Amino acid sequence: MQVIRIQTPSAKYSVFAGTGLLDSLEPRMVRVLPEHYGRGSRLPKRVFVLTSPEIWNLWSKRFLASFSAEPIILFLSPGETHKTLRSVEKLLREMSKAGGDRSSLLIAFGGGIIGDVGGFLAAIYMRGIDYFQVPSTFLSQVDSSVGGKVGVNLPEGKNLVGNFHHPLAVFADMELLSTLSDRELRAGLFESVKAGIIRDRTLARYMEENSAKILGRDNSALEKVIAASIRMKADIVGKDERENGLRMILNLGHTLGHAIESITGYRKLLHGEAVGWGLIAALYLGKQRGTITAVEFDRLMRLIYLYGPLPALKLNAQKLVDASAKDKKHLGNVRRFVLPVGIGDATVVEDVSPVELLDAARYMLALAKELPPKPEAETSR
Amino acid sequence: MQVIRIQTPSAKYSVFAGTGLLDSLEPRMVRVLPEHYGRGSRLPKRVFVLTSPEIWNLWSKRFLASFSAEPIILFLSPGETHKTLRSVEKLLREMSKAGGDRSSLLIAFGGGIIGDVGGFLAAIYMRGIDYFQVPSTFLSQVDSSVGGKVGVNLPEGKNLVGNFHHPLAVFADMELLSTLSDRELRAGLFESVKAGIIRDRTLARYMEENSAKILGRDNSALEKVIAASIRMKADIVGKDERENGLRMILNLGHTLGHAIESITGYRKLLHGEAVGWGLIAALYLGKQRGTITAVEFDRLMRLIYLYGPLPALKLNAQKLVDASAKDKKHLGNVRRFVLPVGIGDATVVEDVSPVELLDAARYMLALAKELPPKPEAETSR
Repeated sequence: MQVIRIQTPSAKYSVFAGTGLLDSLEPRMVRVLPEHYGRGSRLPKRVFVLTSPEIWNLWSKRFLASFSAEPIILFLSPGETHKTLRSVEKLLREMSKAGGDRSSLLIAFGGGIIGDVGGFLAAIYMRGIDYFQVPSTFLSQVDSSVGGKVGVNLPEGKNLVGNFHHPLAVFADMELLSTLSDRELRAGLFESVKAGIIRDRTLARYMEENSAKILGRDNSALEKVIAASIRMKADIVGKDERENGLRMILNLGHTLGHAIESITGYRKLLHGEAVGWGLIAALYLGKQRGTITAVEFDRLMRLIYLYGPLPALKLNAQKLVDASAKDKKHLGNVRRFVLPVGIGDATVVEDVSPVELLDAARYMLALAKELPPKPEAETSR
Repeated sequence: MQVIRIQTPSAKYSVFAGTGLLDSLEPRMVRVLPEHYGRGSRLPKRVFVLTSPEIWNLWSKRFLASFSAEPIILFLSPGETHKTLRSVEKLLREMSKAGGDRSSLLIAFGGGIIGDVGGFLAAIYMRGIDYFQVPSTFLSQVDSSVGGKVGVNLPEGKNLVGNFHHPLAVFADMELLSTLSDRELRAGLFESVKAGIIRDRTLARYMEENSAKILGRDNSALEKVIAASIRMKADIVGKDERENGLRMILNLGHTLGHAIESITGYRKLLHGEAVGWGLIAALYLGKQRGTITAVEFDRLMRLIYLYGPLPALKLNAQKLVDASAKDKKHLGNVRRFVLPVGIGDATVVEDVSPVELLDAARYMLALAKELPPKPEAETSR
């Protein structure tokens, strides 16, 4: 097990990444309570678990085994269409009816949507209660469970409503990844590819050299990639909790990635896949601007392909660029864009012209339409 | 004008209480920006104003006079029935459609509900934007605009959903109080009576000796009472932002006050009036327990009567006590109750039995049913 320490101006907590954590959740949670509440703290009377029916079907028995008192289970149906204020209202009312008070605790057990909605419930129920994250997908383990960003979508756009609310701890169990589909796993791995590109050469190299082990779900390889990705994010979030500057680089590949998701109605691609395509556009722009060399470009494109194939896409480049203008990282009329700088660094620029962006979108869409990239290395599964 | 400084672990800002602030809002806001953003800061491109149609009808001309660019006006219909997540969703969508981004600013201009909803919009729109409070009622000037508590109701109870989100500044203009009804003014004054009882003997005495001036809306008398009430709250909130201990004493009179509001469906009494009745029950309990003397009890009862009459009430005492058990200040099975200690102090106890509470509720309801207290001093209006 690896322990990654998160320290931001507003919170201090640990992320535990390991195998089999699920079997001993309650004692593990009790062990971190003193850090937040002082010695001798116990779990409160009412513990809520927000999860999806699918996850609960698969894991409830092992999840519950370590709990001395049965928690109250709240369900959220899977999919972005349920990540709404409507769902939030329904769940808050359930919490209130079940007698939840200010000392109640919530555990978000599931993928990124469960984590975002669960964290948001905890952020606003009675003006804020404490919560734990038990992320069940690769993507939520490396990304959404760390950093305190929680919230839901509006019909006008993704994640337009939310809060910053850090968990008391995060428990990332590699075993939960065994039930992920290959497609979900690969999609999640693009966030780790991104982590390597923007901040961690060593991780990028490890992922280049160990794709078979990683895609074959070797627990120790997964733990390495996940812990390194979390460490990268923890480092950035610790320095810029509120995304005033540095934290923006986490959005490499996300400007066009979000635009792809938006114009395909969040249905066609998984988030990580959209980011995968967005990374390709960002690498292309980086090469055009000279922030990465042609050699680095080729090497990073190969890295992305290793974790493909990305699903094919048929979209209009201009529409994609138009959709990206609504990105909520933009301030007023300034369009922000993250570019890779060599391998292991990144920068935020504000002068990418619509023409340049269109050029990058066209390059990416040409690849996406005609020749979905295939992985060069065979996986061991 | 008086300036009250608020300092909590998470925010520093000023409350300006004076006459005619409304005519120069924009320059006043621009003047506080450097404290939060650094030198040379200006208002962002998109400024939203959340207000009620009534308030806007009365004051829009003077409100807008000092703004160089017209803000975007959002309306919330008055009343607790609109303090819902449904309204919040509608308003967030309007903000998004109007192009609001992370740098946008919101001004909550109205009474307590506008302040609570406006602050909550600001707390969760794009995970938090900045806002100003321009409270238009006595109650919102002394209470809800200070302390950072924002939020909405659930069908299950009041203020069950929300956040802590402090404004950049609060502008409390005495002139806005000129359009309040006598009833609203008196209702608000019970929060100042409470402030005097729990923390400020001087304020209690001033209110005893100057009820005619205060109820006659002498601007300088109102400014004194309002500034003293805010200062009291600022002191407490600065020491206990998250209501872990001391801040609880602000709830003197609120346990039964909230219960009255709850079982009368929030329609019959104004919040301050319910608190007025709740204060009487709390004084009675304090006398029974010996935390105030019989002489202090008589003096404080007279103080409450001075700002009456309180509307008559016909309620079942047992039902009232049952409703109070749902108070969200309670933790698990522990019922918390605030008692006055002499004049100018208060304490939180956890051992008030249902029988004692029933006794206090009966005392209060006997007064409320048979003889609505009348003020002893005539007002000058």
